[in-house]
Amino acid sequence: MRAVVLLSGGLDSYTAAAIVRAEGFELYALTIGYGQRHASELDSARRVARSLGVARHLELAIDLRAIGGSSLTSDAPGFDIPRDRDVAVAADIPSTYVPARNTIFLSLALGWAEVIAARDIVIGVNALDYSGYPDCRPEFIRAFETVASLGTRAGVEGARFRIHTPLIALSKAEIIRRGLALGLDYGLTHSCYDPGASGAPCGRCDSCLLRAKGFAEAGAADPLVLR
Amino acid sequence: MRAVVLLSGGLDSYTAAAIVRAEGFELYALTIGYGQRHASELDSARRVARSLGVARHLELAIDLRAIGGSSLTSDAPGFDIPRDRDVAVAADIPSTYVPARNTIFLSLALGWAEVIAARDIVIGVNALDYSGYPDCRPEFIRAFETVASLGTRAGVEGARFRIHTPLIALSKAEIIRRGLALGLDYGLTHSCYDPGASGAPCGRCDSCLLRAKGFAEAGAADPLVLR
Repeated sequence: MRAVVLLSGGLDSYTAAAIVRAEGFELYALTIGYGQRHASELDSARRVARSLGVARHLELAIDLRAIGGSSLTSDAPGFDIPRDRDVAVAADIPSTYVPARNTIFLSLALGWAEVIAARDIVIGVNALDYSGYPDCRPEFIRAFETVASLGTRAGVEGARFRIHTPLIALSKAEIIRRGLALGLDYGLTHSCYDPGASGAPCGRCDSCLLRAKGFAEAGAADPLVLR
Repeated sequence: MRAVVLLSGGLDSYTAAAIVRAEGFELYALTIGYGQRHASELDSARRVARSLGVARHLELAIDLRAIGGSSLTSDAPGFDIPRDRDVAVAADIPSTYVPARNTIFLSLALGWAEVIAARDIVIGVNALDYSGYPDCRPEFIRAFETVASLGTRAGVEGARFRIHTPLIALSKAEIIRRGLALGLDYGLTHSCYDPGASGAPCGRCDSCLLRAKGFAEAGAADPLVLR
């Protein structure tokens, strides 16, 4: 069976894809270049897709910088990447939130899924060690499944789309342990929101800090840091 | 109050925008170039946006030809534009259906709405004299409103997004009568799915036929045909 998996080039989507692959799905990877500051993650997505042996890797471009409203897509005042926050307690929605991003990504995945007769879509959202994003919550995912079944020809004909969120209840450490057990090479991935010109992780953004905390709690070394 | 209106360059979205403008909304028009066969509708969208006096007209590009699955975005075998159908009785979903198009469009409108602090989104869908598209039905629209409120920062903070569908229960003739009463110039619009090199409507696709039927039932002349 085919599954469309949203693959960002980060650690979470790589692990989510591998989990679903281990369940027997054939992977159709979708990567979306949206004008993100950390566009180097697109290279990681290509490496990860190759490593996963996906049946196809589709890249789509939609320039969300025209919409802005996020420190990942805008340089406007007030949109700085948060640094050195205590990610264990930070509860507000940070400036790295991209308005409606997962709704946009899931809708594109849905369109492709319908065309290739897939009924399964995979997204590496995580409601525990995450960044406070509203579009990573289970109630959002369930609501999108309803939209998917009502808004498509396949749905009208009786299909029910399922959004797989294998990481939604896992901590970052549990995600990493799971991935390592599946033999994943996290050296292929990219997590930093704001890498320097060298491509090296900044080590201070929420994404770097969550990743470091996850590896530490998992008792594992991050191959990106070792390099 | 601001409203984001999805403006295609066609008759329906023009009328929907004008109705909402008459209710006192300030219009932020969003037009999406998705690789559609009838890309000349983008010129119409610019003319219509100017005529409506929108506060801003944002154009985004997302190439849905990479996904295909529709006669509007694919030249693959089996994807011909239907012609000369009896649109009064045609009940199946035609090949012009674009997988998940309105979900994709609404999600982009949602992202922009959140950024400009609009809580109102306008889409000219029509559940009566339409083409059988699943993503034009009221139950789909209601489901998307739920997604919008669950999947955004604004929603988490208590905002409720409303998707306005002022045409949803109108026949094409009623839409045209309403628009003419509002002083709209339908000569600015474009409806044909497959115009020739000259840009002239083919007169035979579902969209041309529904338009002709609408003008006939409204007892009005189509300025596009007069030209």
